[in-house]
Amino acid sequence: MTENKIPYKIYLHENEMPTHYYNVRADMKKKPAPIINPATMKPATAEDLEPVFCKELVKQELDDTTAYFEIPEEIRSFYRMYRPSPLVRAYCLEEKLKTPAKIYYKFEGNNTSGSHKLNSAIAQAYYAKQQGLKGVTTETGAGQWGTALSMACAYLGLDCKVYMVKCSYEQKPFRREVMKTYGASVTPSPSMDTETGRKINAEHPGTTGSLGCAISEAVETALTSEGYRYVLGSVLNQVLLHQSIIGLETKTAMDKYGIVPDIIIGCAGGGSNLGGLISPFMGEKLRGERDYRFIAVEPASCPSLTRGKYAYDYCDTGKICPLSKMYTLGSGFIPSANHAGGLRYHGMSSTLSELYDQGLMEARSEVQTDVFKAAVEFARVEGILPAPESSHAIKVAMDEALKCKETGEEKTILFGLTGTGYFDLKAYEQFNSGTMSDYIPTDEDLAAGFAGLPKVE
Amino acid sequence: MTENKIPYKIYLHENEMPTHYYNVRADMKKKPAPIINPATMKPATAEDLEPVFCKELVKQELDDTTAYFEIPEEIRSFYRMYRPSPLVRAYCLEEKLKTPAKIYYKFEGNNTSGSHKLNSAIAQAYYAKQQGLKGVTTETGAGQWGTALSMACAYLGLDCKVYMVKCSYEQKPFRREVMKTYGASVTPSPSMDTETGRKINAEHPGTTGSLGCAISEAVETALTSEGYRYVLGSVLNQVLLHQSIIGLETKTAMDKYGIVPDIIIGCAGGGSNLGGLISPFMGEKLRGERDYRFIAVEPASCPSLTRGKYAYDYCDTGKICPLSKMYTLGSGFIPSANHAGGLRYHGMSSTLSELYDQGLMEARSEVQTDVFKAAVEFARVEGILPAPESSHAIKVAMDEALKCKETGEEKTILFGLTGTGYFDLKAYEQFNSGTMSDYIPTDEDLAAGFAGLPKVE
Repeated sequence: MTENKIPYKIYLHENEMPTHYYNVRADMKKKPAPIINPATMKPATAEDLEPVFCKELVKQELDDTTAYFEIPEEIRSFYRMYRPSPLVRAYCLEEKLKTPAKIYYKFEGNNTSGSHKLNSAIAQAYYAKQQGLKGVTTETGAGQWGTALSMACAYLGLDCKVYMVKCSYEQKPFRREVMKTYGASVTPSPSMDTETGRKINAEHPGTTGSLGCAISEAVETALTSEGYRYVLGSVLNQVLLHQSIIGLETKTAMDKYGIVPDIIIGCAGGGSNLGGLISPFMGEKLRGERDYRFIAVEPASCPSLTRGKYAYDYCDTGKICPLSKMYTLGSGFIPSANHAGGLRYHGMSSTLSELYDQGLMEARSEVQTDVFKAAVEFARVEGILPAPESSHAIKVAMDEALKCKETGEEKTILFGLTGTGYFDLKAYEQFNSGTMSDYIPTDEDLAAGFAGLPKVE
Repeated sequence: MTENKIPYKIYLHENEMPTHYYNVRADMKKKPAPIINPATMKPATAEDLEPVFCKELVKQELDDTTAYFEIPEEIRSFYRMYRPSPLVRAYCLEEKLKTPAKIYYKFEGNNTSGSHKLNSAIAQAYYAKQQGLKGVTTETGAGQWGTALSMACAYLGLDCKVYMVKCSYEQKPFRREVMKTYGASVTPSPSMDTETGRKINAEHPGTTGSLGCAISEAVETALTSEGYRYVLGSVLNQVLLHQSIIGLETKTAMDKYGIVPDIIIGCAGGGSNLGGLISPFMGEKLRGERDYRFIAVEPASCPSLTRGKYAYDYCDTGKICPLSKMYTLGSGFIPSANHAGGLRYHGMSSTLSELYDQGLMEARSEVQTDVFKAAVEFARVEGILPAPESSHAIKVAMDEALKCKETGEEKTILFGLTGTGYFDLKAYEQFNSGTMSDYIPTDEDLAAGFAGLPKVE
């Protein structure tokens, strides 16, 4: 069905919502490299992974041939509470930029977790529940993932233990409080509850923690607690699978109105949002049905795709999780403290890494002052205060639209607006007051990270 | 059109959105009493009001006979960015309560201002722009209205000067920062920029301000600045007119699916949301076409309808604005500091006051710990973290649904979910940690407020 006037916001009807997740690996001729068990240094088996992860999720993680996984009714029912998310035509931004380009964004921020993270949180919690578990453990930095998971667990009546990086726990009391409101226990990490935590506290008295340490505490707690498993909000194949709901909804909405994007843009940290948004479009490209340009946008201060190495690396700084082949800055790499937003992960989803390595996707990095400038311009005309992460995509979408202005091309640009910035106002304050600065790691900085890469194969 | 299965969320199509605001006063046989000029103590004329308010808005304020006002295309275009707001069937809440009642809520929180306030902010800013003004001034307490107005002004390229109560300015830096991001100037009140501010600062050194003082500063600035007018986010008839968009969308969506509410519930501070939600339904009741029960819910700590007097009173503590006949606790009444949410205004919209006085609407008051209990229950099953204000309506909707459980009646309950609680997590923290307490003013407390009521007529 093609309608003449494209509405500001396209909402699918409930009966048009996707019934299956799409697994882009199924259409890749050269598959992403398998994950490796750090104990054996061999490809990880289901048995290796099941003490840490839920059974069904392990299946999804390892399956690179099944294209579609049915979305269970209970998950679909939860999705109906906050999905479909709108596909928005950015008429006001187009007018402001005076571009002939047509700009669309898929807005994932209209739920209390404030981002797309909820899409995978509910799926992971559902499979934990289905397995008869009591609860799940996870880590959270800024708190977006922890919030999403606590919402999903509250809905399903599962216990949720979140290890929150101590400095975030102290600096972001509101994020913490949302999680508690949804019934999660939130422990500042490093804590005295785990062996890892006690060890780190003893070795580094007064430490404010790190994501790597919080991961270790969450995994340890899952391994030592009867009826618990560990869950993760990005990087993993299963997360990209669940997040394909973003791209599937987008594609259905675009098809309905006869819209074909020329360029598809997403911000990239671990890859959950970008992978989800592009999946069905990438599938078409992989099957030779249609061509698209894909652009991953990452912070200049954490440039895994644009300046990283494609190699096997540890997924966590504690080196207890499986190893993954990915574009990485080394598991010891920590972005500069002046970096305000998320997208701080040292590596990139192995699927996206492989697609990038095959030349099927481009990547670009942006400094944060440019990103916030784009964010504020966007907010003032489109009304939505974007998360700093999402604003990386906004920046490049605006750049591409301005190129169209120069060339006169009427390209169709699609980007993912992953979330809102209500809990990032400290960073906006820095930008508004002119005290925000940029940091681009030197080659020497990066060399230190690369030195820590493990020898594999 | 009646469809069998009611979706979780009903979104109107853009071509179904209201084209006109509805003025409920037009259908009232006994009209609300006119506002009075404090200088002459006679009904205020357009000439009296135009130095303070925009011309077109003065017309809307004084017109109690025209039923429909066309919504200008530029406002409708802005509405399309964040409206229609969803009408949600609370399937999960119904299941949790095991009630035969059908519960619906109109959710106004899916925009960056986080509430319904944006509906009137854009209208007021539009008329200011149309009049050729440079900008507008206003006051804000918690910051919801100021945020909405700054968004509207950014969109239209108008200057926006916000006086923010000093204690809020200091305690809610994030709200302040959202306004600044949208280009508003935010001044802590009392300031040294106005005569009123300097006077109050001199008389009460170190004062942290009050809403009444901020109003006076905003009005003074509008009066003394070339090309500025003052705008207000609640209480006024014009605000109820603009907010009728809430009720009109709701009614269209319900009619489309053949849904007829038995009870309509809204929280009530100044009355902007409640008045907007019930307007078209109340119109039917006034015209004898259909009967509905309406319930206004207010905080037990600021009970203007349930324990106030119906009398002429000052709208501001500075006593410079027109007087209005309303249910009031007296312009000197200040709710206890332990009161966490909004809904702090001492009086109630004159239109709602008159409808209540005529017995066309009920009112109920609730203590805040009960309200937060309902809020958390709601959040956990419906996924949305509600604003404390909105949660007053949730509380009563749940109570009514539980009554249906007892009687077995399948009533249809509609309530207004005015906004989200992302900037109210301090209050949630108090509730979660068990340190929140309740306060109900004694009759003596109220007598002090009533003593300050002016003698009129």
